[in-house]
Amino acid sequence: MNPDQGVEFSLPLRVYIEDTDAGGIVYYVNYLKFIERARTEFMRTLGMDRSAIFNEQMMFVVSDMAVDYRQPARLDDELVATAALRQVGGASLKLRQTVCRGGALLVDAAVTLACVSPEHLTPRRIPKDMLAKLRAASLVPSD
Amino acid sequence: MNPDQGVEFSLPLRVYIEDTDAGGIVYYVNYLKFIERARTEFMRTLGMDRSAIFNEQMMFVVSDMAVDYRQPARLDDELVATAALRQVGGASLKLRQTVCRGGALLVDAAVTLACVSPEHLTPRRIPKDMLAKLRAASLVPSD
Amino acid sequence: MNPDQGVEFSLPLRVYIEDTDAGGIVYYVNYLKFIERARTEFMRTLGMDRSAIFNEQMMFVVSDMAVDYRQPARLDDELVATAALRQVGGASLKLRQTVCRGGALLVDAAVTLACVSPEHLTPRRIPKDMLAKLRAASLVPSD
Amino acid sequence: MNPDQGVEFSLPLRVYIEDTDAGGIVYYVNYLKFIERARTEFMRTLGMDRSAIFNEQMMFVVSDMAVDYRQPARLDDELVATAALRQVGGASLKLRQTVCRGGALLVDAAVTLACVSPEHLTPRRIPKDMLAKLRAASLVPSD
Repeated sequence: MNPDQGVEFSLPLRVYIEDTDAGGIVYYVNYLKFIERARTEFMRTLGMDRSAIFNEQMMFVVSDMAVDYRQPARLDDELVATAALRQVGGASLKLRQTVCRGGALLVDAAVTLACVSPEHLTPRRIPKDMLAKLRAASLVPSD
Repeated sequence: MNPDQGVEFSLPLRVYIEDTDAGGIVYYVNYLKFIERARTEFMRTLGMDRSAIFNEQMMFVVSDMAVDYRQPARLDDELVATAALRQVGGASLKLRQTVCRGGALLVDAAVTLACVSPEHLTPRRIPKDMLAKLRAASLVPSD
Repeated sequence: MNPDQGVEFSLPLRVYIEDTDAGGIVYYVNYLKFIERARTEFMRTLGMDRSAIFNEQMMFVVSDMAVDYRQPARLDDELVATAALRQVGGASLKLRQTVCRGGALLVDAAVTLACVSPEHLTPRRIPKDMLAKLRAASLVPSD
Repeated sequence: MNPDQGVEFSLPLRVYIEDTDAGGIVYYVNYLKFIERARTEFMRTLGMDRSAIFNEQMMFVVSDMAVDYRQPARLDDELVATAALRQVGGASLKLRQTVCRGGALLVDAAVTLACVSPEHLTPRRIPKDMLAKLRAASLVPSD
């Protein structure tokens, strides 16, 4: 666990043919699917399944992201996608997310999620109990 | 126009890197996106845009399909996806759809769409005015 | 195990937001990704990983399929995709594949794979040792 | 044409069901497919089709990107994806790319492409004649 990342969640996954492109590598867009799967499972470990965070009252949407592609993944690779909370605001979250293979960092991403009302996608506050769980998960464990 | 196809609608499209896989060809799943685009544009020519056919009262879903892959498409190919109504039932439609390159038939598909209520996806009748338009489009023009 | 299916392989998977569409259900095209993942993992259990079946000498491509959509899957559903060999020919394979949720059959597919040379995608014979493994996996175990 | 963007290329496109997710909006990952289509067509207008920029000697890969999501697109929207060269280096390109609907900016992206050798994806110089075309396209036209 990296001290400046709080709790880091890891999801193992496999590269299938659907993930690749004619360059013989994972299509750059598809790494973003991998990190979204990791975000979803990370949220689930906090007791926030999809019905909790994607319903008529609220949903999270990506408001911005910066992605650094270091090395490509290839068909059949076993990867790990990670998610770690870096900042928890009243209506938004900042995460660091990576895709790794073995010890190698392939993709490094900073992702901001905004909490919105589904109908018009206007910003809204994250519910209090959810906020408490998220803050706990973003704390750096002290030794 | 093929006499046993009624009106055939054609949509030109280009193969982009997103459509390919590590085999260097179009990923077999993605041809189904191509033919859905053709279906959507075909419906639009009948005055049935998405708000007409995908709303709180009804939507069309694919209930079955048979797909024959004859030849592969490759990156940068210029293709044509087609849609032709073969049968118009009270609550379902049968279409023949193809993907071609030049004169060559690459993919040949028979697709059945069911008209359903969105909430529980239970079958429902196609509205009368829509049915009339669909029947007209499935008629074989006489010489 | 169904007696008319030989060995059936099952792969559990989760529905993520990437798999859904604006109808609130899994986009019909994406079930085909699920069953391809099951095919790939099934092959791996037979000792045929991707480098064995997707290389400069050979690859398998889908030559035809028939897909029956019975019930929709939704966001966050836990599904099982299956693969079972029904017929092993000298240059092609026929599989039955399904997507299920709990005991419910959602999607039922018959898929034919052709063994081809990668360069021009011309048919070629399945290598002998591979054929033996495939035939063994398609046998109905006797009691 | 924006004076600080050089030549801006625009590609009109339509949102299909394949592009959406269960939130009823375009899945955030899919905007990146839209802007890649615009990049590809932009390159083509410069006389650089896929065989010129994606072959055994070279290909371009995305090395980093920053994406700002301002407003969502929805099913059936008519969008415009743009591409404009901001910087042409010896082995990399920086582009500004957007997705707009009418006058509204929905997605704003800065994308860096690296020119690499396909086999090991190691950086290589952009060929001279290509470089000249790219530099010409990145020039701000003077009045």
